Amino acid sequence: MEKRFWWERDDLCYVDGRLSFAGHDVSTLAQQTAGPLYLYSADRITANLQRLTRALEQTGSAHQIYYAMKANRFEPLLDMVARTGLCGVDICSPGELDRALTSGFAPQQISFTGTGVSNADLDRLLQQPGVHINCDSIGMIRRIGERRPGSSIGIRVNPAMGTGYDESEKLTYSGNGTTKFGIYREQWDEALAVAHKYGLTVDTLHFHVGCGYLSGQLGQWERAVEACALFLKDLPDVTTVNIGGGLGLPHRADDAPLDFDQWADILARHIGNKSPYLGLTIAVEPGDFIVKDAGMLILSVGDVEMKRDTLFAYVNGGFNLAPEPAFYDLPCEPAACILPADNDPLVAVTIAGNINEALDIWAKDHPMPKLAEGDHIAFINAGGYASAMASNHCMRGEATERLL
Amino acid sequence: MEKRFWWERDDLCYVDGRLSFAGHDVSTLAQQTAGPLYLYSADRITANLQRLTRALEQTGSAHQIYYAMKANRFEPLLDMVARTGLCGVDICSPGELDRALTSGFAPQQISFTGTGVSNADLDRLLQQPGVHINCDSIGMIRRIGERRPGSSIGIRVNPAMGTGYDESEKLTYSGNGTTKFGIYREQWDEALAVAHKYGLTVDTLHFHVGCGYLSGQLGQWERAVEACALFLKDLPDVTTVNIGGGLGLPHRADDAPLDFDQWADILARHIGNKSPYLGLTIAVEPGDFIVKDAGMLILSVGDVEMKRDTLFAYVNGGFNLAPEPAFYDLPCEPAACILPADNDPLVAVTIAGNINEALDIWAKDHPMPKLAEGDHIAFINAGGYASAMASNHCMRGEATERLL
Repeated sequence: MEKRFWWERDDLCYVDGRLSFAGHDVSTLAQQTAGPLYLYSADRITANLQRLTRALEQTGSAHQIYYAMKANRFEPLLDMVARTGLCGVDICSPGELDRALTSGFAPQQISFTGTGVSNADLDRLLQQPGVHINCDSIGMIRRIGERRPGSSIGIRVNPAMGTGYDESEKLTYSGNGTTKFGIYREQWDEALAVAHKYGLTVDTLHFHVGCGYLSGQLGQWERAVEACALFLKDLPDVTTVNIGGGLGLPHRADDAPLDFDQWADILARHIGNKSPYLGLTIAVEPGDFIVKDAGMLILSVGDVEMKRDTLFAYVNGGFNLAPEPAFYDLPCEPAACILPADNDPLVAVTIAGNINEALDIWAKDHPMPKLAEGDHIAFINAGGYASAMASNHCMRGEATERLL
Repeated sequence: MEKRFWWERDDLCYVDGRLSFAGHDVSTLAQQTAGPLYLYSADRITANLQRLTRALEQTGSAHQIYYAMKANRFEPLLDMVARTGLCGVDICSPGELDRALTSGFAPQQISFTGTGVSNADLDRLLQQPGVHINCDSIGMIRRIGERRPGSSIGIRVNPAMGTGYDESEKLTYSGNGTTKFGIYREQWDEALAVAHKYGLTVDTLHFHVGCGYLSGQLGQWERAVEACALFLKDLPDVTTVNIGGGLGLPHRADDAPLDFDQWADILARHIGNKSPYLGLTIAVEPGDFIVKDAGMLILSVGDVEMKRDTLFAYVNGGFNLAPEPAFYDLPCEPAACILPADNDPLVAVTIAGNINEALDIWAKDHPMPKLAEGDHIAFINAGGYASAMASNHCMRGEATERLL
């Protein structure tokens, strides 16, 4: 396969100038739907789970994947993930518990890691005794202790260092500034005392230090893992270290995929069989890494015209359908569904959504083939945190989702 | 009334230490609902429409308000706005057209200003011949011309200068950088030629140069209005200038309300009876100005605890219910529903939502009375672009709306 664009791969590439995804001609699928269309590839999701499983095997430790459903909870997709048998599911709210159970996950396959957890939330969660709960605050430890003394819990810690895609502050969940997540070293003794008071067994140490980290962030990520591992010596009953999610994937041409050899080695040295802590299970709860590059959003082009010095192409969907480009500067790279036969050079196009806000721009001065009214554009990497965060802003929320 | 907080006013203030809104005790209302609760005041909405009407009267011109429904489309609120008889409605999508009509607005009271307008959108809009349409692109002029030659349209122009709250780039809709909105001077002749080709009458000049402008931005706003007025000399049939929305309101203690004397004078001098263009109707299409300070979101407090050096209070709702604080740096100031009797000094509290994202923080180190589990906090200025932009992210989207 000759790659013209950085994101092309075996199951996402041009075939005779037409974009193919998961063995389907994207333009043909787009023409079956009037409005915005999300497409997801079951095969790519399975392949991502398998890649991650192989990486975890390299650590030499027992391991467990929990798919973070907050990335994409489309029912057919979630049902399909459950059927793979390759993972459990990470949830963060009572609503997600209901969705997990109806998708076929057993309570024992469900791990809860939430924040701002209310008593109403807890009461609902504790109705399913098999569900594992990681505590994000001392108050949560106390409130579980009051409701279910003597039970087992996890504790999320905050190592006061973290990282994320492109070192974005918005995507760093523990770092120089104090964040709302987990328990800091300063309050650690108090947390353990509260757990002890209620006879709670701390079987899991949890941390999640940022979103979207790639190989360039692994140095900083290792320092965070190392800092988290220091909490282990105070947990005699710990069986599992849950390292959170945040595994990144390439969003731009100059992003390299995460180096899993290096990643697995970091885990082995700090919490695995090369560390002082032997026999621990390594759990990981990624969302984006499993589904993001397994999905795309297809929009159709309306006006294509110059405004002052800029060539705009307007599409029939906006940032309310996929907020990451506008709000997090995480692009969903646009790909023309059909390349012109003449192999003309690409031109710089600014692709604008149909929401009345200035920030509703999909891509600025992006190299694209010549576009015309009625063409379709696929926005890649729209499998995670797109439909799951979609709103009906401007009453432009209508869209179709389809699992291939 | 003795004001302790900058945002207190006759219909939003503490009465014997209890927050009162539109004559209701907020804490009492909050206790009637288990989850997040939006409250809206019909009286405040009417008062805002009346304030704006008086300001428009000062221009000496005929005038028309269109309420921008994208700010808040809660059905009872929209029905109530229609019943005031003080305004028409600004819409930006076919879905909003349907909602406007079912709320009781006549087609002649409806003005459409959209972007990225598709042919499917246009076909739906043109089924209601009374609806006024402002064109955002030359393509849109052409496509209306093809469908309804000889009809009347508005044209949105872009003066290549603008302003917004705190000069935020995200909230500036025309400025140094080329934006997707309207027609620039560089393409103006072409736009007029296309309108002429289809025998279209341009009866409205439209512009909207930014969101949330206050008195400090009026100087820059005047320059933008002046630049827009220059387009009028090419429009012999123009009857209306629609100045868009964007009228700001105070979000922080040091924001002063918009100076309407100065605002009306700018309009009078550039497009009103002190300008060369006599007899024009001045139309305005605000959303936030009408509804934002007429609404609040009430959340309940869970854990209150120190994390490292910061006192956090966690509440049972996150930025998915009101994205402006997290994404636009436009705060929804928190107000305790009950002040402690002892008049203790305020303490700095960071108020965190229940979404698993680091940016989900309502307020940082905000001076608040001592808070405890079960307390309620009202987030003011949540009447606009809050529920209208809400998502079900993390399946935390459930909330109740109530018009008082």
